[in-house]
Amino acid sequence: MTATKLILALLLFLLISSSIANSKKIRGRKPCKRLVLYFHDIIYNGKNAKNATSAIVGSPAWGNRTNLAVPNRFGDMVIFDDPITLDNNFRSTPIGRAQGFYLYDKKEILTAWFGFSFVFNSTQLKGTINFAGADDIMKTTRDLSVIGGTGDFFMTRGMATLMTDAYEDDRYFRLRVDVKLYECY
Amino acid sequence: MTATKLILALLLFLLISSSIANSKKIRGRKPCKRLVLYFHDIIYNGKNAKNATSAIVGSPAWGNRTNLAVPNRFGDMVIFDDPITLDNNFRSTPIGRAQGFYLYDKKEILTAWFGFSFVFNSTQLKGTINFAGADDIMKTTRDLSVIGGTGDFFMTRGMATLMTDAYEDDRYFRLRVDVKLYECY
Amino acid sequence: MTATKLILALLLFLLISSSIANSKKIRGRKPCKRLVLYFHDIIYNGKNAKNATSAIVGSPAWGNRTNLAVPNRFGDMVIFDDPITLDNNFRSTPIGRAQGFYLYDKKEILTAWFGFSFVFNSTQLKGTINFAGADDIMKTTRDLSVIGGTGDFFMTRGMATLMTDAYEDDRYFRLRVDVKLYECY
Repeated sequence: MTATKLILALLLFLLISSSIANSKKIRGRKPCKRLVLYFHDIIYNGKNAKNATSAIVGSPAWGNRTNLAVPNRFGDMVIFDDPITLDNNFRSTPIGRAQGFYLYDKKEILTAWFGFSFVFNSTQLKGTINFAGADDIMKTTRDLSVIGGTGDFFMTRGMATLMTDAYEDDRYFRLRVDVKLYECY
Repeated sequence: MTATKLILALLLFLLISSSIANSKKIRGRKPCKRLVLYFHDIIYNGKNAKNATSAIVGSPAWGNRTNLAVPNRFGDMVIFDDPITLDNNFRSTPIGRAQGFYLYDKKEILTAWFGFSFVFNSTQLKGTINFAGADDIMKTTRDLSVIGGTGDFFMTRGMATLMTDAYEDDRYFRLRVDVKLYECY
Repeated sequence: MTATKLILALLLFLLISSSIANSKKIRGRKPCKRLVLYFHDIIYNGKNAKNATSAIVGSPAWGNRTNLAVPNRFGDMVIFDDPITLDNNFRSTPIGRAQGFYLYDKKEILTAWFGFSFVFNSTQLKGTINFAGADDIMKTTRDLSVIGGTGDFFMTRGMATLMTDAYEDDRYFRLRVDVKLYECY
């Protein structure tokens, strides 16, 4: 009987802890996978076709496609194919590409909206991570959603914390992206 | 022995109900969080720069950026930064901004596709909710996906039911958004 | 006592297998729902307004809206409303529409980024499936994310494997989409 009671207690404990684990699965907010990466954006200005990694493809009636719109770039839509590096050096060997679009969406201050993917295709890393969300640029950090992934990142979900790591002459910016994945498969 | 059997029966019940709860977790479709909000869009028409909350930034070859394209606005892409209010009064104090884009995607009737965020930054509400999906405008209600969230809406998923609450002169519309979140953390 | 032990063993087995099932729920990568469909895109070229199902609405400074940009269409943004068919025949009765946008995002080769929905509204199939992700066009197959759904596809998540099934004269393409849903409700 003592053995039976012991097993029963054990079962009950397992059952309860398993059900707590389910309902709180990411309450602790501990990522199952994490990557800190940088990407680099050089926007086309009419003269830098060779070096540019992005281009304005839509602008408001008062804007054009070689200059960022005034005020606050509101209405500019940009398509990009930016190198991803492990450190903040633009000349480091890229480990993938950040591809997609961003658009500036506020007249009063700089804010943007992103839809893009990290695309990896090396021996170490294969697949994509898909992102969407608002970028409140003037804040030190801001969070986007990881809405899915493929390959090594099959079906993943999570958060991406952006930081502007560098910003030069309206023509170059570098973002630090802290990718925290909370659902891994 | 009777006590043991009772405990066993209880355990079995807990186990089965817990496993049913897992597989059907949102079958009942009861949201874990719900918000009903309004947002207001005034499109730029060449004369209302001060009041406009959105602007056409892309249009088909036969269109332009101060008039909605004919027929059915097909090919117009709009960037917006619209105030969110708790009631349907445009002059109510905004509790956040709806920011992102919509595009009109059908020649025969009015339909749109949305990618945007609700951005909150008050003492009551902080964070973002990210949306994507098709808007079959001529239907009374239509559903978009909540694809993620940040801050108070960390990692959320759910549905957003849109209703056109007002519509004036091709220049203003108001959407009622019933946000039902089924995954909360 | 033997019966009790038997029940205990059974309970333990159920508990363990249930907890394994939870943590590995889609490790086996067996979809809960699967659809193989085709969609057909005819881009507007200035002369085919009647037949076109899509149109360039944004282009880089060096491009225009009736010709795909050179090189590699980089910077072109396209809005589409394409028929979905069950087989690869463009003239088959559509069972829905693929609606949204794609954009070409690389100078060196053909790559794209998609944000769109499958919209169904028949007696057999109602609702939408929402997609986002990178399309590495030159690969035989490539995966996008299913980021949500409505109606029959309420809250779904999964993967969509694209194959270019036909490609003609820069004006028509047909994609085969293998939709594998791993989260069904």
